[in-house]
Amino acid sequence: MIARDPSELFELANKGSRTALARLLTYVESGGTSHLDTAALAYRTPSPYVVGITGPPGGGKSTLTDRLITTSLEAGSFDGDESFDQVGVLCVDPSSPFSGGAILGDRIRMQDHATNEHVFIRSMATRGHLGGLSLAVPDALRVLGASGFRLAIVETVGVGQMEVDIASAADTTVVVTNPGWGDSMQASKAGLLEVADIFVINKSERPGVRETRRDLEQMLDLGEHKWRPVIVETTATSGVGTEALWDAIIEHRRFVLAEDYDALQRARLRVALDQVLAAMLRAKVGDLARGESYDTQIERLLAGTTDPYHAAEVLLSPS
Amino acid sequence: MIARDPSELFELANKGSRTALARLLTYVESGGTSHLDTAALAYRTPSPYVVGITGPPGGGKSTLTDRLITTSLEAGSFDGDESFDQVGVLCVDPSSPFSGGAILGDRIRMQDHATNEHVFIRSMATRGHLGGLSLAVPDALRVLGASGFRLAIVETVGVGQMEVDIASAADTTVVVTNPGWGDSMQASKAGLLEVADIFVINKSERPGVRETRRDLEQMLDLGEHKWRPVIVETTATSGVGTEALWDAIIEHRRFVLAEDYDALQRARLRVALDQVLAAMLRAKVGDLARGESYDTQIERLLAGTTDPYHAAEVLLSPS
Repeated sequence: MIARDPSELFELANKGSRTALARLLTYVESGGTSHLDTAALAYRTPSPYVVGITGPPGGGKSTLTDRLITTSLEAGSFDGDESFDQVGVLCVDPSSPFSGGAILGDRIRMQDHATNEHVFIRSMATRGHLGGLSLAVPDALRVLGASGFRLAIVETVGVGQMEVDIASAADTTVVVTNPGWGDSMQASKAGLLEVADIFVINKSERPGVRETRRDLEQMLDLGEHKWRPVIVETTATSGVGTEALWDAIIEHRRFVLAEDYDALQRARLRVALDQVLAAMLRAKVGDLARGESYDTQIERLLAGTTDPYHAAEVLLSPS
Repeated sequence: MIARDPSELFELANKGSRTALARLLTYVESGGTSHLDTAALAYRTPSPYVVGITGPPGGGKSTLTDRLITTSLEAGSFDGDESFDQVGVLCVDPSSPFSGGAILGDRIRMQDHATNEHVFIRSMATRGHLGGLSLAVPDALRVLGASGFRLAIVETVGVGQMEVDIASAADTTVVVTNPGWGDSMQASKAGLLEVADIFVINKSERPGVRETRRDLEQMLDLGEHKWRPVIVETTATSGVGTEALWDAIIEHRRFVLAEDYDALQRARLRVALDQVLAAMLRAKVGDLARGESYDTQIERLLAGTTDPYHAAEVLLSPS
């Protein structure tokens, strides 16, 4: 029987127990006190290096992630300076756990790695977590870090703002496009232009690669960049270009570390802390809205004897 | 010289002073203590009956609003049961105060009424208001109510979710479409199908009216309605159909009042109170994030000696 205490679970997870790691991630997804205990331990270890993979559906993100797992494990280190022998992958799909054939098919293909002890793959859902997926995913990455992972990949399925936000909170964000997808309106509308560190033109065996590359370059010419996003062509189904993608990730990591990495971490922790504060305060609004004095204020508002501002002040003042 | 005290200003506004009314609305837009004093008085009077006008740009909303002002003043009462001799119009355009030729032109045309003492037109902007336009507009409507207006029109320019939300918080929401605009994807994507009490097919002199009506009817057939939205054809430039639109508004008002109007008001006041609570708590997060103990917690997070949840608890606990 497996332990339930987060500190025991972390000990087991560091010895390679996937069951223990899975339970810790369930704690994160579920919220509650076990989550708080898990977070307390997880944040003692730095985050792993995180590669985010995002882009419109059908672009081949999962197949590319699949290839990237193999390529990174073959490399076995970042830039020669920090070695690793395992990769953690989080798949985020807030829209639905059963999004239909194509995605499910890719997921199953990725699960070939499931029998590989060097790979840990987990689909993230959120059940009770206070701040939803945008907080649960950073927590889960910390759990991976505190379980011994130095490299993590976050693949987001779906094209909502939240998915883009989650992927772009990675250290290196890879936006996956396809030939014919260069249309600048589409890219800038989805906000993908702003978050990409690397553009992948996947399915590069198809016609239109040159035009897509030219369109992307033209869009990039319009902006100013401390890091100008690199464009890599891949055919994920056959593996063509995945080493070039890994090289581009390493190159970007070099840039990130040469920048003020501490400042980046500080900014990220501010975001996390503000999100937690906001979520706790939201919960407080919810609590207030179930109270008796809230109902009193609503009746007073209906009667025209108060206004929303004074009513709110009354509710927020310590009684 | 005009008074500055909200209660004096309300007294003057009720005697017809547009300058006093304008100042009260400036207080609402600006936030601060004058706003709180204004709100305290404004919410003592029930809201006027509010007609919201929304829809994609270029549909002729302003010209239609222009016509509706004249038609409603000619009618001079709702359904014969409640008379009025003035109309208040709020124009909401969060995107920009200078949105270019077409809109500006329509605005100027609407300003023909500016010399009419029975019409008050105001473009709403938000400067310091705590909760932005989605709170400032309801407040401004209350100010109109407390200044003697029984009918108000809110025209939103722009197609963001906020504009739609603002317009659809009206008692009767009019969605302005044009021939050729029946494409169901477009309407349901913009969320306009859900908020419309009345659809106007404006520019009805153009071809495609019958197809647009058919498309709208088909979309409506897919839903269940306690009130099935009415479709009215207008040519706002010549005034054709504006009386039919006014009749539809009266018919919908009859429906609204026959439903539980108190419950509707209560639900609306809950939304307002929750928004104020959330805004006050957001402000609190902002205050916290500028404090010394916040910086301490960030440093502790960087050092790995706390996590965002415990850090937030420390910051939120009364010191």
